[in-house]
Amino acid sequence: MLGACYYPEHWPEDVWATDARRMREAGLKVIRIAEFGWARMETAPGIFHWDWLDKAIETLAAEGLEIVLGTPTAAPPRWLIDLHPEILPVDRDGNVRKFGSRRHYTVVSPKLHEATRRIVTAMAERYGAHPSVIGWQVDNEFGCDDTVFAWGDVDRAHFQSWLKAKYGTPEELNRAWGNEFWSMQVTRFEEVELPAGQVCAINRATQIDYMRCRSDAFMDYFKLQADIIRAHSPGRFVTHNAMGYSHTFDHFEMGRMMDLASWDSYPLGRMESLLVSEEERIRWARTGHPDISGLQHDHYRAVGQGRFWIMEQQPGPVNWAKWNAIPEAGMIRLWTWEALAHGAEAVVYFRWRQCPFAQEQMHSGLLRPDSEMSPGGREAAIVAGELDALGSLPETTKAPVALVFDYSAAWVLQFEPQGHDYDIRMLLIRWYEAFRKLGVDVDIVPAGQSLDGYKAVIVPVLPIVSEAAHAAFATAAAPVLFGPRAGSKTGNFAIPDSLPPGPLLQGLMPLKVAEVESMRPGLEEKVTGVVQGTVRRWRENIETDMQVLARFSTGAPALVANGSHHYLAGWPEPDLLEDLARMLLAKAGISPLDLPEHVRLRRRGNLVFAFNYGPQSWTVPVSEDALLLGTRELAAYDVACWRE
Amino acid sequence: MLGACYYPEHWPEDVWATDARRMREAGLKVIRIAEFGWARMETAPGIFHWDWLDKAIETLAAEGLEIVLGTPTAAPPRWLIDLHPEILPVDRDGNVRKFGSRRHYTVVSPKLHEATRRIVTAMAERYGAHPSVIGWQVDNEFGCDDTVFAWGDVDRAHFQSWLKAKYGTPEELNRAWGNEFWSMQVTRFEEVELPAGQVCAINRATQIDYMRCRSDAFMDYFKLQADIIRAHSPGRFVTHNAMGYSHTFDHFEMGRMMDLASWDSYPLGRMESLLVSEEERIRWARTGHPDISGLQHDHYRAVGQGRFWIMEQQPGPVNWAKWNAIPEAGMIRLWTWEALAHGAEAVVYFRWRQCPFAQEQMHSGLLRPDSEMSPGGREAAIVAGELDALGSLPETTKAPVALVFDYSAAWVLQFEPQGHDYDIRMLLIRWYEAFRKLGVDVDIVPAGQSLDGYKAVIVPVLPIVSEAAHAAFATAAAPVLFGPRAGSKTGNFAIPDSLPPGPLLQGLMPLKVAEVESMRPGLEEKVTGVVQGTVRRWRENIETDMQVLARFSTGAPALVANGSHHYLAGWPEPDLLEDLARMLLAKAGISPLDLPEHVRLRRRGNLVFAFNYGPQSWTVPVSEDALLLGTRELAAYDVACWRE
Amino acid sequence: MLGACYYPEHWPEDVWATDARRMREAGLKVIRIAEFGWARMETAPGIFHWDWLDKAIETLAAEGLEIVLGTPTAAPPRWLIDLHPEILPVDRDGNVRKFGSRRHYTVVSPKLHEATRRIVTAMAERYGAHPSVIGWQVDNEFGCDDTVFAWGDVDRAHFQSWLKAKYGTPEELNRAWGNEFWSMQVTRFEEVELPAGQVCAINRATQIDYMRCRSDAFMDYFKLQADIIRAHSPGRFVTHNAMGYSHTFDHFEMGRMMDLASWDSYPLGRMESLLVSEEERIRWARTGHPDISGLQHDHYRAVGQGRFWIMEQQPGPVNWAKWNAIPEAGMIRLWTWEALAHGAEAVVYFRWRQCPFAQEQMHSGLLRPDSEMSPGGREAAIVAGELDALGSLPETTKAPVALVFDYSAAWVLQFEPQGHDYDIRMLLIRWYEAFRKLGVDVDIVPAGQSLDGYKAVIVPVLPIVSEAAHAAFATAAAPVLFGPRAGSKTGNFAIPDSLPPGPLLQGLMPLKVAEVESMRPGLEEKVTGVVQGTVRRWRENIETDMQVLARFSTGAPALVANGSHHYLAGWPEPDLLEDLARMLLAKAGISPLDLPEHVRLRRRGNLVFAFNYGPQSWTVPVSEDALLLGTRELAAYDVACWRE
Ligand SMILES: [Zn+2]
Ligand SMILES: [Zn+2]
Ligand SMILES: [Zn+2]
Repeated sequence: MLGACYYPEHWPEDVWATDARRMREAGLKVIRIAEFGWARMETAPGIFHWDWLDKAIETLAAEGLEIVLGTPTAAPPRWLIDLHPEILPVDRDGNVRKFGSRRHYTVVSPKLHEATRRIVTAMAERYGAHPSVIGWQVDNEFGCDDTVFAWGDVDRAHFQSWLKAKYGTPEELNRAWGNEFWSMQVTRFEEVELPAGQVCAINRATQIDYMRCRSDAFMDYFKLQADIIRAHSPGRFVTHNAMGYSHTFDHFEMGRMMDLASWDSYPLGRMESLLVSEEERIRWARTGHPDISGLQHDHYRAVGQGRFWIMEQQPGPVNWAKWNAIPEAGMIRLWTWEALAHGAEAVVYFRWRQCPFAQEQMHSGLLRPDSEMSPGGREAAIVAGELDALGSLPETTKAPVALVFDYSAAWVLQFEPQGHDYDIRMLLIRWYEAFRKLGVDVDIVPAGQSLDGYKAVIVPVLPIVSEAAHAAFATAAAPVLFGPRAGSKTGNFAIPDSLPPGPLLQGLMPLKVAEVESMRPGLEEKVTGVVQGTVRRWRENIETDMQVLARFSTGAPALVANGSHHYLAGWPEPDLLEDLARMLLAKAGISPLDLPEHVRLRRRGNLVFAFNYGPQSWTVPVSEDALLLGTRELAAYDVACWRE
Repeated sequence: MLGACYYPEHWPEDVWATDARRMREAGLKVIRIAEFGWARMETAPGIFHWDWLDKAIETLAAEGLEIVLGTPTAAPPRWLIDLHPEILPVDRDGNVRKFGSRRHYTVVSPKLHEATRRIVTAMAERYGAHPSVIGWQVDNEFGCDDTVFAWGDVDRAHFQSWLKAKYGTPEELNRAWGNEFWSMQVTRFEEVELPAGQVCAINRATQIDYMRCRSDAFMDYFKLQADIIRAHSPGRFVTHNAMGYSHTFDHFEMGRMMDLASWDSYPLGRMESLLVSEEERIRWARTGHPDISGLQHDHYRAVGQGRFWIMEQQPGPVNWAKWNAIPEAGMIRLWTWEALAHGAEAVVYFRWRQCPFAQEQMHSGLLRPDSEMSPGGREAAIVAGELDALGSLPETTKAPVALVFDYSAAWVLQFEPQGHDYDIRMLLIRWYEAFRKLGVDVDIVPAGQSLDGYKAVIVPVLPIVSEAAHAAFATAAAPVLFGPRAGSKTGNFAIPDSLPPGPLLQGLMPLKVAEVESMRPGLEEKVTGVVQGTVRRWRENIETDMQVLARFSTGAPALVANGSHHYLAGWPEPDLLEDLARMLLAKAGISPLDLPEHVRLRRRGNLVFAFNYGPQSWTVPVSEDALLLGTRELAAYDVACWRE
Repeated sequence: MLGACYYPEHWPEDVWATDARRMREAGLKVIRIAEFGWARMETAPGIFHWDWLDKAIETLAAEGLEIVLGTPTAAPPRWLIDLHPEILPVDRDGNVRKFGSRRHYTVVSPKLHEATRRIVTAMAERYGAHPSVIGWQVDNEFGCDDTVFAWGDVDRAHFQSWLKAKYGTPEELNRAWGNEFWSMQVTRFEEVELPAGQVCAINRATQIDYMRCRSDAFMDYFKLQADIIRAHSPGRFVTHNAMGYSHTFDHFEMGRMMDLASWDSYPLGRMESLLVSEEERIRWARTGHPDISGLQHDHYRAVGQGRFWIMEQQPGPVNWAKWNAIPEAGMIRLWTWEALAHGAEAVVYFRWRQCPFAQEQMHSGLLRPDSEMSPGGREAAIVAGELDALGSLPETTKAPVALVFDYSAAWVLQFEPQGHDYDIRMLLIRWYEAFRKLGVDVDIVPAGQSLDGYKAVIVPVLPIVSEAAHAAFATAAAPVLFGPRAGSKTGNFAIPDSLPPGPLLQGLMPLKVAEVESMRPGLEEKVTGVVQGTVRRWRENIETDMQVLARFSTGAPALVANGSHHYLAGWPEPDLLEDLARMLLAKAGISPLDLPEHVRLRRRGNLVFAFNYGPQSWTVPVSEDALLLGTRELAAYDVACWRE
């Protein structure tokens, strides 16, 4: 189903009813509201004002619209900051980050928790049982604008407590972190500094522990709210709207506390910050790279353990990228169908009407500021009609390929890239893309989860390998391909005694990574053998008696195998990735379908969807009359659908 | 007339007389002094030392030189900072900006005002009636080195008072700013934060109001000094030496308090920071772009309501750009004549003698540190002789083309560029250049001022359109061409209810801007129709029944007209700008003169000047004997002049 | 001899004996230990723990290994910081740089000095007379990670005292600095601010004085430790391990307090930060530029007045550059032999075994973390064997060419580059390379030291010329070539009254630099005459009656001579440098040997070494049977040696 984000507080009350009617007429079913309205709900501690929200909810409900309520904690009001200025976060330099935008809190502040309990309890008590309220969104975009970390006294004390709980004694902390190095030993937990502002390099173990500590703090903060909501609002889902390509806390862990996941999909804005090539940024400027959304759909489906929403969908140009293009005509519809094809239960556009004032005035909506429908609004209405015509969509089924991921991988690479351009977002999109260009669906699978039923497994990067992850790899029936740096770190962010890939993976693949090289731009190595292509950015010298499937031009092993377990000793460029994908698909007995670069397929149950991201048409591989959507000669930026 | 900046305090007293004699012999008529001498004038509160300045003035006067006195407030002395450290400005991060260079004050400091009153009164009382003193310069280069803004407690309190005066109540402030967005409402003015250091995007309305607040503060500070001076120094002009391409306060407004404007012209230093192409930076490295000074001459002539000086003219290499070239031989003379041709009443070189110590030791002067004449000094002396031969120059008359500008345009683009390269300096120089390459003079006209008498009007960017500006456009007899983003914002920095270009301009041009796109490098659109060419950086989708004069390759309107009012829906590249200029000139009945890229013309009364910025000669379009300056085959870097 | 850095505190005691045995077996003779072990040595003020270090030293000594002891002051322990937090350095923004890495002290802290005296005395008393201890390293890499400067109250007070001692009165300070400029006069030394955080440009005289002040402070701190050590450890050398290409204090001055110099050689890591071209960074990514180490070997041989060690030698990939390549096979051996050829008495690899935890876990060692020998370890063992076979190496003799350098040159260019890319490291490597490519050895000679015995002298940049330097130039028998900017500043960082090159050099070369230009990328001038080639980045207009040997295409003099003294008026590109080198060698009667770009020669006494940095072989110019090392067709990355 489709929906929109709506801010009744931004508009005169007398337009609410018209808005609600037009939402219904446009085919929208669900409206998200309230997630920035704290100052209007509560004007002093415990002084609540619900009249406006009562009326807004009734107005929407009167048109049959269902409601997702956002808790407003991403925007603590001025009076709360005046009462407890220590809620404000402190930046790496020790400066307080000021009131005047949003997310101005450190998540571990006790006073924030106290105020959160009060407002969320009040909201949940008042609206938890409302028949039109179907779900809740906790807060908004945790981590946006570098708000996972904070660097004040309260954060330092919290980290020290967290460390004490984890390690028990300073001696154990010193041992786990290797504090013997450079005389960094502490004798009391109170001596531990936050890992910023040191003179030179910081202990990686400190860095990853502070990341874990903050990730845990967001788990606590989510749970604080979710528990209250669930107590007062039975039967409603609880979720959080995450950001794409954001790895600043463990979404898989939070997902296990959610009824369903949701994420905010802005394909064009995100393109500018992804480390794809300049050529690609131009080519896909008005469509987004064909895998930029798909990868995250599949990711958040995993976060939600099968269930996810798009809680915010880009409806037109946005305001926050360096350049903000107008999507090609058709792209709002295409993105919407793509989300649905990947299993989204709902696509909620951000926002209903473009807000003509304040920070986001250049962010488009389904309506323009003058209340006319925008091109995106018109495309959304078309999808709504198509969805009605198509009836309910089938369940998503398991994809043939599993891409195994763990948040610790992002953290290891963040704190120790070793090569300047070892970017995990780039890495993930390249591995994913290789299969998607061959028409194959991919599931993202959290490391440690069973790999049963998959026909091929890829592990682009997994420095820290847990026992559970090892068990899943060991018992996988499918061929498994590990990228470089797999198993290169212990849980304490150290090199394993037996060298990478560490004792667990060495049980599956008897090899040692003897040396690694990060390769500056301009260096590359050619790989030949069972697969051919190019390695850039990273290569490894490995020692092994395993079967060598491909070698570098130096003769060193590039791809080795032990039964179904494969290890790749370099960062593969697209040419090599294509060969690797074909090799794995061949082993898995899957026939690839050579798609043009601008076309993608995706199955949902027995439905197959095709998406044309390019200006050239593409001939759909079924007959015209089999098509539920689209035409056989699939036009630019058009969508096709057929039953398999 | 010509002059120089002189710092007697830097040199032994026994060279002053020789310096004065040589100034006179070089043909200089006017000398600016004293604007950094506070520490020598006043050594403790109210303890003044005038002997040295008395003697300096007498020595200059004895040679018949006229004097412009600078008030020394750009360099508060150490003892004043010791007494009142709160005078020092605080930077965006909360750090105090230290004593030890210049402009180390926040302009709203009451103690600064107190000390300013004392020193300016003392100076004005002592020298106001001196017969050789012909004018005053208040302070020096307001805003240089990011000194308009300051971020301390005194600045915050001042902003809060300013807001209270403007909005009256917090409710009205909340409404005007749209503080409902993200729960940013305040209940007291004391709760308003300065717009820096917030977690993420800041309300644009806050940003532009803080800019206006600081601009106003500089008006107050200028007026404080000007009032004192005028009380004690009747008949002398009061000015301020502004910087080129600086938009950090409203120079038009300050200009209305001045007797004449003045600005500091450093063509080569400025080239490196202007966003022209790398190719242009190389091509014009030793001359400056041919319009880099002309545009600012015309601009400050508007600031001075017809009257302006060059208060500092680059005399050779400078010290402050990333690279500092030696001007081509002839350029000091060319720049001087160009200023005069654009109407300058005086050109004052900075500085008389290169100072061999402290911060600016690599900044050349008319004399080298060893007191020999520099190449620039020799060229200045040549101009002095030519000026004498030519007699007094005629009055400047109105140019055929008006370029309408308002400082609010710079501020809107600064706080909401929406596209990363929407640079106003680049924009202005491109539009200006298009007409200048066709031999046409251009006046800069403040938005809201009458456009009577102009034959064509261009408005490169004007997001906020005042009633007065609208009235001038409505009553203009000439064709008017608006660039994109015209009328795109209300005075409160919001999108107009009726969409851009807003109700006022929509009265002249019935159109709505439905969507805008900022285009990353690598994207472009071709325009065809009455004009042809390329749009980059920005395009708009507009809805209108107006006449479509040109379209994008997509078919969307690119240039539309309603009678004499034209609207352009994209950022024009030089090819398109040339066509637009030709179109407007044709409508205006003006014949363009196709100049080579390196030649410019400029009329002053009945005199026509030609300037050759290139290494190739150019044939002047009059006969040899008509020439008052130069030769028919105008040499590289040479100047010609003839009567029209 | 060869050695390694070893950290017994990182490893279980039961592996120490094995490590020691394997060190001996690998041919190592000397082991550096203890320089980060303060927290283990002293756990509270005066509470020492020597058992572990006693045992470590005995274990090494038992295998006949000699020991260099590092004082541990680069890593003050947590308890010391807790007792005296004011030891921590403050950064330019006023933020305290935290405990948690290393070098977290300001060198002028009295409490640091107190604690340093205690720990160094205790170490020196305990181990000073140990027969296996042959030398001491004071602290570790002074200045690493921007730790020469600090910006706190203690630093400001120290600078003020330093100034008082230097200038006596504020009046003299004001005069020397030219504080009259911009009213910067002070009336008490307590008013002087540190030169950071000012509103705009800072007085260059202040900047260079603060640099001198900090350099002096490191002299004091080195002397504090060296005096204690010498009192308790007679007959042992005292040194400090300096960094390559680091000019943040006066190493020549410190060198005069040392028994021998030492430096840390990381050819690959350093490549990425040197401003050579992108093409060169790729070409030499796995070898380093052929002169990158040689220049510094020669430099530190000068620092050590003929004696130097490599105290840390890169043994494989490192962890701290943007990209970290694996050296080509053979390079560890090549670098080692190259150091020895340049006169190193010992090459000590950093580190014995790669440390799998904490900050430097990706820094390789002679052993891998699993205690297998790394490729670098195997190459080191080969060199050890070769060294044994070759017997003791002859003394280094004077090179034919002297390159004169002074640290003040680096400081002048740092504070007043005038052109953005006037990088001294680039400059030095280019001038040095020109001679090295012609097979000629070069000595670095501190300005002011006698130039007797040299056949040619080059002075790439020397803005401040001392009396002693002048005397050496005046009495040099050899031709001397000065690069631009020679003599361009007085000791107070001002332009000389008589213009550059100042009165002293003008006595040797009657010329005046009338104008200088820094040239942006894209500008160049061709030089023709006795030498031909290209000038970029910088050119000067000089006035002189000296003999003009070459001119710019403008006709201006580019190279002039007065007898044996030559002055070059621009930054020479490699083509011009080659001609200049050939000209000087011709005058000196030295026959150049045209080497390929990837080959270098170096003589040590009567031994000649050849180094092949490239993938192509090179034919050695002696017969096969003359070779002590290598083969006539010298293989890629191989070393040859023969007797001359
Ligand atoms: Zn509180
Ligand atoms: Zn005060
Ligand atoms: Zn203390």
